[in-house]
Amino acid sequence: MTAELTGGDLSRLRQLNALAVIRALREEEALTLTELARRTKLSRASAEDVVRELMELGWVAEAGATAGSVGRPARRYRFRAEAGRVLGVDIGGHKIRARVADLDGEVLHGAEVAVTPEMGRKERLAAVDEAVAEALRGAGVTPAEVWASGVATTGLVDGAGRVMLSEALPEWTGVDVAGHVGRLVNGPVRVENDAKVAALAECWRGVARYARNVVYLLAGLRTGAGLIIDGRLHRGFGNAAGEIGALPAAGWIRAQEHLKSWPATGPGAVEDIFLAARGGDRKAAGIVRRYVRDIALGASALVLTLDPELVVLGGGFSRSADLIAEPLRRELDRWCIRTPEVRVSAFGDEGVVLGAVRLALDHVEGVLHGGAELTSPDRFAAGQRPVT
Amino acid sequence: MTAELTGGDLSRLRQLNALAVIRALREEEALTLTELARRTKLSRASAEDVVRELMELGWVAEAGATAGSVGRPARRYRFRAEAGRVLGVDIGGHKIRARVADLDGEVLHGAEVAVTPEMGRKERLAAVDEAVAEALRGAGVTPAEVWASGVATTGLVDGAGRVMLSEALPEWTGVDVAGHVGRLVNGPVRVENDAKVAALAECWRGVARYARNVVYLLAGLRTGAGLIIDGRLHRGFGNAAGEIGALPAAGWIRAQEHLKSWPATGPGAVEDIFLAARGGDRKAAGIVRRYVRDIALGASALVLTLDPELVVLGGGFSRSADLIAEPLRRELDRWCIRTPEVRVSAFGDEGVVLGAVRLALDHVEGVLHGGAELTSPDRFAAGQRPVT
Repeated sequence: MTAELTGGDLSRLRQLNALAVIRALREEEALTLTELARRTKLSRASAEDVVRELMELGWVAEAGATAGSVGRPARRYRFRAEAGRVLGVDIGGHKIRARVADLDGEVLHGAEVAVTPEMGRKERLAAVDEAVAEALRGAGVTPAEVWASGVATTGLVDGAGRVMLSEALPEWTGVDVAGHVGRLVNGPVRVENDAKVAALAECWRGVARYARNVVYLLAGLRTGAGLIIDGRLHRGFGNAAGEIGALPAAGWIRAQEHLKSWPATGPGAVEDIFLAARGGDRKAAGIVRRYVRDIALGASALVLTLDPELVVLGGGFSRSADLIAEPLRRELDRWCIRTPEVRVSAFGDEGVVLGAVRLALDHVEGVLHGGAELTSPDRFAAGQRPVT
Repeated sequence: MTAELTGGDLSRLRQLNALAVIRALREEEALTLTELARRTKLSRASAEDVVRELMELGWVAEAGATAGSVGRPARRYRFRAEAGRVLGVDIGGHKIRARVADLDGEVLHGAEVAVTPEMGRKERLAAVDEAVAEALRGAGVTPAEVWASGVATTGLVDGAGRVMLSEALPEWTGVDVAGHVGRLVNGPVRVENDAKVAALAECWRGVARYARNVVYLLAGLRTGAGLIIDGRLHRGFGNAAGEIGALPAAGWIRAQEHLKSWPATGPGAVEDIFLAARGGDRKAAGIVRRYVRDIALGASALVLTLDPELVVLGGGFSRSADLIAEPLRRELDRWCIRTPEVRVSAFGDEGVVLGAVRLALDHVEGVLHGGAELTSPDRFAAGQRPVT
C-alpha cells in the first residue's frame, strides 16, 4: 500500500530528521555538515536545513573550527548540552548527595548533607530538600529548569519510585521518593536502588565502559550489587535482582559484622580500620581479611551464576582497594570456575550519584530517541510532566 | 540513492518472500492464502505464486480444509515438517539418549543406551554411536538425511562443541563432542551443557512457555541450572553461567552427599529413597528433607541474583515432585526476598534430550530466518556442512 505524503507526514519527516541530527551530534563533540549528512544519511542540503532550524530552536550551536586544515576550515556544529539541566540525587544512610548536570552529564554543581542511618523519614527527606536546593542554587538553576531527575536510594524500589523494602533505614520502607522529589523540581523522576544505579555509571563513563556483562559490587557501610547483562541493567521480574546479600550463606551479613568488631565507632570507624591495617595493625588486618573473605563469597555466587566478563569493585571502600582488590581476586579465584577480571571503580562513593544523573539522562534520551515532537528546548522541558 | 532492480535483486526478493511464507506457516498448523497474505504483507496473488513454488520445491503441502465453514472451504497450506530431520542426543552419566525428530520437533524415534559414570571416554562415545544408529534405524532415516544435530552433555562446553571441564565423568574433559557426532551424521552439530539445554526445552514446549525470566533446576544424580534471561538462554561470557553448584556454601555438593548415605547403591538407589520416604521411612524422609534444604540454598542464590518470574524443577527427580516441590517452595520462601512461582517440569529426565532437539532446530531456524538461499529441502540439507 502506498499513499501520498500529506502535510502532516512531511512535518513528521522533518521532526525525524531533526532527531537524527541531534542523536548524531550527541555522539560526537562536533561534526561538519558533510560528516552529519553521512551519518544521518540525509543529503547535505537537508542536513544544512535541519541544522539551521535546530540552531534557531536552540538545540545546536556552532563549534570552534578544526585547526590544521588547509584552506577555509569547514564549519562544525555541536549539540547544546547547556540547553537543559538534569538532577541526580543519592539518598544514603550517612549522606545525601545532589548534583545538577547538563545534557552531557557534566556536573555543574553538587551539594552534600550529612545524615545518620538512625534518622527517621521526615528528617531524611528534609536533608534531601536541603541538598537539592543547595545544588540548584550553586548551579544557578531554578526548579522549573530541571528536565528530569534520577534518584538512587538504599533498599528495593518499585516501578512507581516508591521504596518497597529498606532493611538499613528506619521508616524508609513505603516512602514515595518519586513523589517527594517530583514536588521539588520540574520533570519526571526515576528512582532506582543505589547499587544498580552505580553499575549504570560504570558502564557509562567508568571502568566497565566496554563490557557487556558486569557484576558491580557496591562495597561500603552496606554491600550491594548491580548486574549488567548483555549491555543492559538487569532489574529482575520484581526489581529485586542482585540481592544475594539476603542469603546468610553468601557472607555479606557477616562481612559487615566483622567491621563492627573494631573498637572505634561513628562514620569514620571503617576508615580507621583501613588506616590501622595499612600501618601494620594485626587486629585491623584480620578484620579486613575476614571482611574480604565474606564479601568474596557472595560475589562468587553472583559470578558463578552469571559468568560475567568483569567484576567492578565500587562504593566507598573502593578507595581502599589497595587492601581489598588483591585478596578479593584471590578469593574469587578460589571459588569461581572462570575468574573474571576485577577492576576498581575510579568513582569511589561518587559512583551512585553519577548513576543517578545517568538515570535522568536515560529518561531524556528515551524521549528524544522515542521520536518526541521537537520544539524549543524550553518547551520540550515544560512538556516533561512529573510521572504520577 | 535509488537504483533499478536487477534480475538478481528480483530473485533475491522472491527468496525473501518464500522465507517469509515459510516462517508464517511454521508458526501455525495451516493457513489459507488470505491469512498468509495478511501475515506476510504480500498481495494474495504473490502469496499464491510463492506457495505454488514452495509446493514444487517440497517445503509446503496442502492441508485438510477447515470444517464447518459455509460454502466451498478455502484451501489451507502447511509447512512440511517431514521435509527434514534433526537429531538430538543427551550424553549423561547413566544413560545416552538419542532422538530423531522432524522440523516441528516431533520425535519419530528414540533410543537409549545404559552407561555408567565410571566409563571412560571411548566406551561412552561408543554408546553414543550405538544410540544414534538405533534412533536413525528406528526412524528410517539415513545419516545423510540429518539436517542438524543438537547434543547435550554434562560439564562445561566451549563454543566449538568441546568439553572444557567435566567434574562428573572421567576422561570427559577435552572430548570433541561436536567433531565426534559430526562424523556420525550430516550437518552441523551444536553442543551445550545439559541443564542449559533442558531450560530451552521448558521455554519451547514446557511449563516455562510464557515466561521470559526463568531459573531451571536440573535435579537428578547431579544438580545443574539453566538460566533464561529476557527470553534468551544466558550462556555467560565463557559459557559457564549457572554453575552455582561449584560454591560449597551453596549446598549442592552436600545435597548429593545426603543421597549417598542411603544403604542401597546403584542406579535405582535414589528411587529407593523416594519410595521409602513415601512409605513413611523416617531415615529416608530425613535424607529427602536435607537434600531439598541444600538444593534450595543454591536455588535461592540463583533467585536472589536474578529475581526470575519462575523456577522450574526439572531433571529425573522431578518425577518425585510430590516429595520435593512443596518443601522446595517453603525453603525458597525462607531465603528469598521475592519468592517466584515454582513449577514442576512435565518432561522428567526427557527434558534434556528434548532440549537437544531444540538446539538442532535453533540451527535450522537460524539459517532459514537468516535469509538462506532457498532451494529444495534436500539441497538445503546438503548445504548444511558440519562446523569444523
